[in-house]
Amino acid sequence: MNLILLEADEVAPEGLARLCGARADHALRVLRVAQGDEVRVGVIDGAVGTGRVTAVYDDGVELRCSLTERPERPRVDLILALPRPKVLRRLWSQIAALGVGRIILTNAARVERNYFDTHLLDPAVYRSLLIEGLQQARDTHLPKVSVHRRFRPLVEGELHELCPEGIRLVADPDGRDPLGTIAPPSGGRVLVAVGPEGGWVGFELRLLQTYGFRAVNLGPRTLRSDTACVAVLAVVHAALGRQESDEAGIC
Amino acid sequence: MNLILLEADEVAPEGLARLCGARADHALRVLRVAQGDEVRVGVIDGAVGTGRVTAVYDDGVELRCSLTERPERPRVDLILALPRPKVLRRLWSQIAALGVGRIILTNAARVERNYFDTHLLDPAVYRSLLIEGLQQARDTHLPKVSVHRRFRPLVEGELHELCPEGIRLVADPDGRDPLGTIAPPSGGRVLVAVGPEGGWVGFELRLLQTYGFRAVNLGPRTLRSDTACVAVLAVVHAALGRQESDEAGIC
Repeated sequence: MNLILLEADEVAPEGLARLCGARADHALRVLRVAQGDEVRVGVIDGAVGTGRVTAVYDDGVELRCSLTERPERPRVDLILALPRPKVLRRLWSQIAALGVGRIILTNAARVERNYFDTHLLDPAVYRSLLIEGLQQARDTHLPKVSVHRRFRPLVEGELHELCPEGIRLVADPDGRDPLGTIAPPSGGRVLVAVGPEGGWVGFELRLLQTYGFRAVNLGPRTLRSDTACVAVLAVVHAALGRQESDEAGIC
Repeated sequence: MNLILLEADEVAPEGLARLCGARADHALRVLRVAQGDEVRVGVIDGAVGTGRVTAVYDDGVELRCSLTERPERPRVDLILALPRPKVLRRLWSQIAALGVGRIILTNAARVERNYFDTHLLDPAVYRSLLIEGLQQARDTHLPKVSVHRRFRPLVEGELHELCPEGIRLVADPDGRDPLGTIAPPSGGRVLVAVGPEGGWVGFELRLLQTYGFRAVNLGPRTLRSDTACVAVLAVVHAALGRQESDEAGIC
């Protein structure tokens, strides 16, 4: 936990907040805070800053928060064919840590129907896993999540509302261009689609391409979909970082 | 399993091989092979090609293999501060799938001593997990593995023998250059060091830098060490792929 995240309604107008439960445990047992110490705090979907410890109890910590900086919203959005529950459990926090604005979980030909029955699609469950990832990565932007049981209406209709702007990529071993060579427009968003175990089927790939998705490959090695998901997000973020660093160099 | 891997001594001189156990199960139940079918096969640390099914039994499959191509050895080597066993179990196959020539597991200040007691450091255990990753990625190059209980002698001495050539990078949130901007020398190797949960300590970073490691960052987000390991390997492979694609463009 590199950042302690608070709900907006946990912070009183004058910046006072009281931690209890896992966050208090973390402050007391891991950070071993004492009165007067400062810890990094943030508000979900809000700013980050510092919290000065004003009081320490057996089961709680009181902070006076000074929240001054707003982290930049991640410029990447993800379409992910719903993975099996065991994998999904692990991916929630990893995806949030890597940084995405939006997670669009979708059905696909190679997704098993019963994957949709998991409690891991319950917002109360995944929200805390996402927050775990944000606290790791020191971000406050909770990814927006939507779950789509039908692939075609998603691509043909809903996607236009969800992700109106940015370039669109689909990871596919037969994609012509390496993902590492993409050059997203300056400041723009990237929407990337990662398929299920076994990949997208031909119909899905063609539909995505019809709707502006460029097929990109991750090299000659076929990865499991969970590894591919982390790899794709890392490489896209690296491309965005490279672009920012080039632009900073030009100025 | 995108490639069925055989041990060298499982293939008779005329290319005959018999699958049993998990590989036979895969051929029979997942690929549902019949006599005359072809499957992708490879020999560990050897060539890949096809195996034509010559006979099918209840518990085994006979193949006549034609092994013609040798995959390129991955140009990336990895130093990894020993993660906790639960994470290591998952990483073995992921690292092999992403592709490394060598895995150097090391102690570090923030590695807990008892991590070295795990059975996951037993070659008989990790070898099968590595092979699982190779079969996923269609590679035959089994990563060479070494385990080092002392960090300093590793960096000051042993590393020179293990990785005599190539550029050296260490992932560090305070590293000046983004990992995504590295431009490895054409055809050369990259050795990259990934720290433990909580990162390398100052002494370790300075020692690595003394021995030629350049500190590179993965962006402003702090990742858990297992996510970081996958992300780092993906970004380095993407950089190598980008380079190859640039060179192909020039020719």
